Amino acid sequence: MSEFTPRDPAFASKVRDSFDRQKVMTLIGARLARVEPGRVTIELPHRDDLVQQHGYLHAGIVGTIADSAGGYAGFSLMPAGSSVLSVEYRMHLLAPAQGERFVAHGRVIRSGRTITVCELEVEAIRDGVARRCAWGSQTLMCLEGRGLPEG
Amino acid sequence: MSEFTPRDPAFASKVRDSFDRQKVMTLIGARLARVEPGRVTIELPHRDDLVQQHGYLHAGIVGTIADSAGGYAGFSLMPAGSSVLSVEYRMHLLAPAQGERFVAHGRVIRSGRTITVCELEVEAIRDGVARRCAWGSQTLMCLEGRGLPEG
Amino acid sequence: MSEFTPRDPAFASKVRDSFDRQKVMTLIGARLARVEPGRVTIELPHRDDLVQQHGYLHAGIVGTIADSAGGYAGFSLMPAGSSVLSVEYRMHLLAPAQGERFVAHGRVIRSGRTITVCELEVEAIRDGVARRCAWGSQTLMCLEGRGLPEG
Amino acid sequence: MSEFTPRDPAFASKVRDSFDRQKVMTLIGARLARVEPGRVTIELPHRDDLVQQHGYLHAGIVGTIADSAGGYAGFSLMPAGSSVLSVEYRMHLLAPAQGERFVAHGRVIRSGRTITVCELEVEAIRDGVARRCAWGSQTLMCLEGRGLPEG
Repeated sequence: MSEFTPRDPAFASKVRDSFDRQKVMTLIGARLARVEPGRVTIELPHRDDLVQQHGYLHAGIVGTIADSAGGYAGFSLMPAGSSVLSVEYRMHLLAPAQGERFVAHGRVIRSGRTITVCELEVEAIRDGVARRCAWGSQTLMCLEGRGLPEG
Repeated sequence: MSEFTPRDPAFASKVRDSFDRQKVMTLIGARLARVEPGRVTIELPHRDDLVQQHGYLHAGIVGTIADSAGGYAGFSLMPAGSSVLSVEYRMHLLAPAQGERFVAHGRVIRSGRTITVCELEVEAIRDGVARRCAWGSQTLMCLEGRGLPEG
Repeated sequence: MSEFTPRDPAFASKVRDSFDRQKVMTLIGARLARVEPGRVTIELPHRDDLVQQHGYLHAGIVGTIADSAGGYAGFSLMPAGSSVLSVEYRMHLLAPAQGERFVAHGRVIRSGRTITVCELEVEAIRDGVARRCAWGSQTLMCLEGRGLPEG
Repeated sequence: MSEFTPRDPAFASKVRDSFDRQKVMTLIGARLARVEPGRVTIELPHRDDLVQQHGYLHAGIVGTIADSAGGYAGFSLMPAGSSVLSVEYRMHLLAPAQGERFVAHGRVIRSGRTITVCELEVEAIRDGVARRCAWGSQTLMCLEGRGLPEG
């Protein structure tokens, strides 16, 4: 159960609609697995065209699903009519991103009026066993009543 | 002209060979534009299937080309027979990643025996004008005489 | 109970001896509150000469106790004869650092042969109630059999 | 010469007044050396009570002068009546902080209405020779017409 109360009752459909417009998610084959207030999970099956030179999932693709999981975790708590902007994110790469499937978790650590901070985590599922392969954090900004980020 | 002297005279072909094995670069359409000792540039033309919900290049794809540019900038200075591992990276997203083309620069800030630190920068080229849209940093680890990262 | 088994049975006295040599801890009035394998807590009473312009604990002093807590959490798991080096750290400042006392927690997230990653957290205790005011992460390096960091 | 035009003509005295209220700067012996629009320099002479276990300047004190240098670089460009808040900062520790004097530079990389991003750099001056010992970045928030950070 989440500790947060969403200000927008339509938070889940709002997140799903926005995710569907992230065309890069279709390109890499990621899907939105779970949406709760302040917590979002994205899943990505392994594919041979997503790898770096050693055959592991590229750290940037690890970051791509983590950044979206965190961004939507934050967005789920923002008021209706606002949009979300990633200000910065960082990933520690803890272990090779090796497995048949990857699961990215975004969790809100602090939800403020303007600034939201999220924890990011990516697990690699290998032979059915989950191992954390990346961990990081993210700063988000809420743009109230604006559809587009500041210039 | 670079301030660094590479320990491996074959640094440029080593970088190009490794880049060619990063299949995700083919998927997104990125190419290695320039390899100098301690400096690498990767270019990525805009494509509609790489975007986030507002139509800009996804922050994770910005991070993907930046992480590789930095990783190869560091790798260019490492001795023959070693491999490179991203320990962590972070990106500040300074402006919407909007343009017809994106250019990621990785530059070595500190080259140590084990630890290398790089500056990462991504420019968006819009109507022919470059604007920095992301800036960050990265910690790399050199694995001497080992083909694979530590378990 | 800690999930880690220390490689050095004298880990606690090793950490305490090193902390006692950090003269800046005496200057600011910080003390080592708890040492467990992979987890260290440092406490700092509020003092009027540690503040920034609004009267809160300066973000750099928040970082000082957090960096040491994490560094010693990592050091507690390193083999005898090795030394620890902070490679990088980062702090999210979640709330004003305001209170009668501050408690910094360092926890090992990943313990590798060379690289250790820690989670950093600082709580402000105000009228006896703890509130997280800062949260971050840190990369440490283990220098085996060397007393001083690499040049 | 700075590339920025300050919105507050009294930017330099505003920065100096605020710095004087940071009592921790008096405690550690730091002084404001230079204030230009978007660029601030802080100097800190070495003192034996500021060190970590190897006798170098503690990474947290390195971060303290860097965080203030960046914060005031950002503050110098903010409108009159606003206050500045550090949202997050990070430091790469590139070399031992060893020397008779330390110089922290904060430089604005991006100046937005709400969010400012700064580059942080600390040089150690040893036998009169400057060497970069730390490098990092920082996200600041401008609180317009408010004296205190959000709760």
